[in-house]
Amino acid sequence: MATTKLSRNASIDELYTAARGGNRRALGRLLTLVERGGRDAETIGELANPDAGAAHIVGITGAPGAGKSTLTGRLVVHLAGAGRRPAVLAVDPSSPLTGGAILGDRIRMSDTTEDLTVAPEVGDRTFIRSMATRGHSGGLALAVPLAVRLFDAMGYDPVIIETVGVGQVEVDVVAAADTAVVVMTPGMGDAVQANKAGLLEVADVFVVNKADRPGANDVRRDLDLMLDLSHLTGQDTTDGGDGYRPPIVMCSALEGTGEADVWAAVEAHLISLDERGQRLRRRHHRIRTEVRARMSQALANRIDEAMDSDVGRELVAHVTDGALSPTGASAKLLDALLGPQLEPGLDPRSEPRS
Amino acid sequence: MATTKLSRNASIDELYTAARGGNRRALGRLLTLVERGGRDAETIGELANPDAGAAHIVGITGAPGAGKSTLTGRLVVHLAGAGRRPAVLAVDPSSPLTGGAILGDRIRMSDTTEDLTVAPEVGDRTFIRSMATRGHSGGLALAVPLAVRLFDAMGYDPVIIETVGVGQVEVDVVAAADTAVVVMTPGMGDAVQANKAGLLEVADVFVVNKADRPGANDVRRDLDLMLDLSHLTGQDTTDGGDGYRPPIVMCSALEGTGEADVWAAVEAHLISLDERGQRLRRRHHRIRTEVRARMSQALANRIDEAMDSDVGRELVAHVTDGALSPTGASAKLLDALLGPQLEPGLDPRSEPRS
Repeated sequence: MATTKLSRNASIDELYTAARGGNRRALGRLLTLVERGGRDAETIGELANPDAGAAHIVGITGAPGAGKSTLTGRLVVHLAGAGRRPAVLAVDPSSPLTGGAILGDRIRMSDTTEDLTVAPEVGDRTFIRSMATRGHSGGLALAVPLAVRLFDAMGYDPVIIETVGVGQVEVDVVAAADTAVVVMTPGMGDAVQANKAGLLEVADVFVVNKADRPGANDVRRDLDLMLDLSHLTGQDTTDGGDGYRPPIVMCSALEGTGEADVWAAVEAHLISLDERGQRLRRRHHRIRTEVRARMSQALANRIDEAMDSDVGRELVAHVTDGALSPTGASAKLLDALLGPQLEPGLDPRSEPRS
Repeated sequence: MATTKLSRNASIDELYTAARGGNRRALGRLLTLVERGGRDAETIGELANPDAGAAHIVGITGAPGAGKSTLTGRLVVHLAGAGRRPAVLAVDPSSPLTGGAILGDRIRMSDTTEDLTVAPEVGDRTFIRSMATRGHSGGLALAVPLAVRLFDAMGYDPVIIETVGVGQVEVDVVAAADTAVVVMTPGMGDAVQANKAGLLEVADVFVVNKADRPGANDVRRDLDLMLDLSHLTGQDTTDGGDGYRPPIVMCSALEGTGEADVWAAVEAHLISLDERGQRLRRRHHRIRTEVRARMSQALANRIDEAMDSDVGRELVAHVTDGALSPTGASAKLLDALLGPQLEPGLDPRSEPRS
């Protein structure tokens, strides 16, 4: 697989150097390789690692239809106009049945090396990339950190991850950012749903979008109440529980009002992170999440190998014949993979093993 | 944890024997232990394994609001009236943001040992249990096969798994059944979404519910077209591509019309499975799915152990300091866990290791 990639007219090293020099097409090709995963993606991550670390990483999530894409677009124009170089990684949801609806409002870039630019005057200062997850959230958990690191290494700042908080993986992605923005809208019971989804614990900034609509103040009130409650119960763990309270910013991305307030709140949170000595803690959490995801992927491949091995086929056949239980087959395969030491809670065999 | 369970007035063995003897409360308590997972759940699975294997396992899925619960209820009454002993395992979706809406139309049974009965005259022949996944789909993948096996061992037949096909895990659960029923409704573009979700490849029987509504025949036509296409392109892999074409049954669960036709199609599919020698193939696929899920869970626990070990903390600290990349840290931790042999595609180190 590596060879096919490298047999293109430019090597990964050459692509990386060109991208660092401002070649947007080279960056687009690197992002495509990152999205495809495998060895090339890891190589790119290794190249980018020393050059990365400066960018403010912002996660934006919310339910479908909350207007995240519109808000993100407004923020990008606002930031580029202010001399910043924002990059956006727009993550398509991994949930298949909801995928269709959300893909509709975005150009899917999964198989092209071109980038999706906004207004011409800011296009050269920004890079907006949509990343498809093709249903397997594992790929998302692996590719997003590499893509963010690549943007970071290219000098883009902030790097905005936009995703739909329909799944735990998406929530985790946003939770691993420096600043997590949760977008709500009136009339969807979003505040209650966000509470269910655990977004209250994740959010550093709440945005009530479509604030011109009736019910916007109700959403704000509901959020305030739940934040009071979560502070009383000490649920807010993302900031170490040292008293930072997520602000609630009203805006109307469609009308183009409020995005400056949103960004001001995002910047204020980063300053607060530094003041509270929490920024390193966030980075540490982000790295733990990524390392865990990479280990999970590697072990998932090991499981597939074990299942397809002769031993695996034989054990599954024994279960099919009723001679063995699925739990027993799993335990035996794990022994073959890891050696015979399982956690007690997962080892179905009551008698100790020699 | 095992001790807390066993310190109840009845041991798992006693509960199992009582449940086999028809004690519904004992079965409810066993199902609660299965849902909680861990060693007790595995023990129950080991007990049930020799007694199970006879039941017709039916998966019913579809988008939220498709009327699955109503249809399932109709089927249960129909089956119990015909002298069968149907059991239903209703799986709450794992996707947090959609969870609230769907939980609304069902009594959540996660923390009670009582069972949800339907009409009194059939209640003693049926067992309907709702299983909450509490957000972690891993728990679902582990608990559902055990609960199904337990119902099977208790002599319930068919065992119906009802779930919302919003996530890959839910789709996998249904795909692992003997007969997979996909419920559609008019006016939701369900046929197209089902295609996106890969349900066309999974479905053995299509049900167009709310068939009295306008557009029901459009859904049927769309499905027919896509089935023609999938047969032309040989996409239908669930039955080994030997020409079984999923029927499309119109019904109105709310009106109570068509459930008999739905069940007739489900039975016809099982007969077709036997005729084509495919039933064992389904069972084999179901077992592979379960064994893989159990291995994944065990290895996920191993990853957490490794991350929380001194080595894990040290490596993450090195990455935070920039001395090491996340990929490198993951590789080193995997070496510690599995010994130094990673797949080439996931080993970031270019130089060979001694």
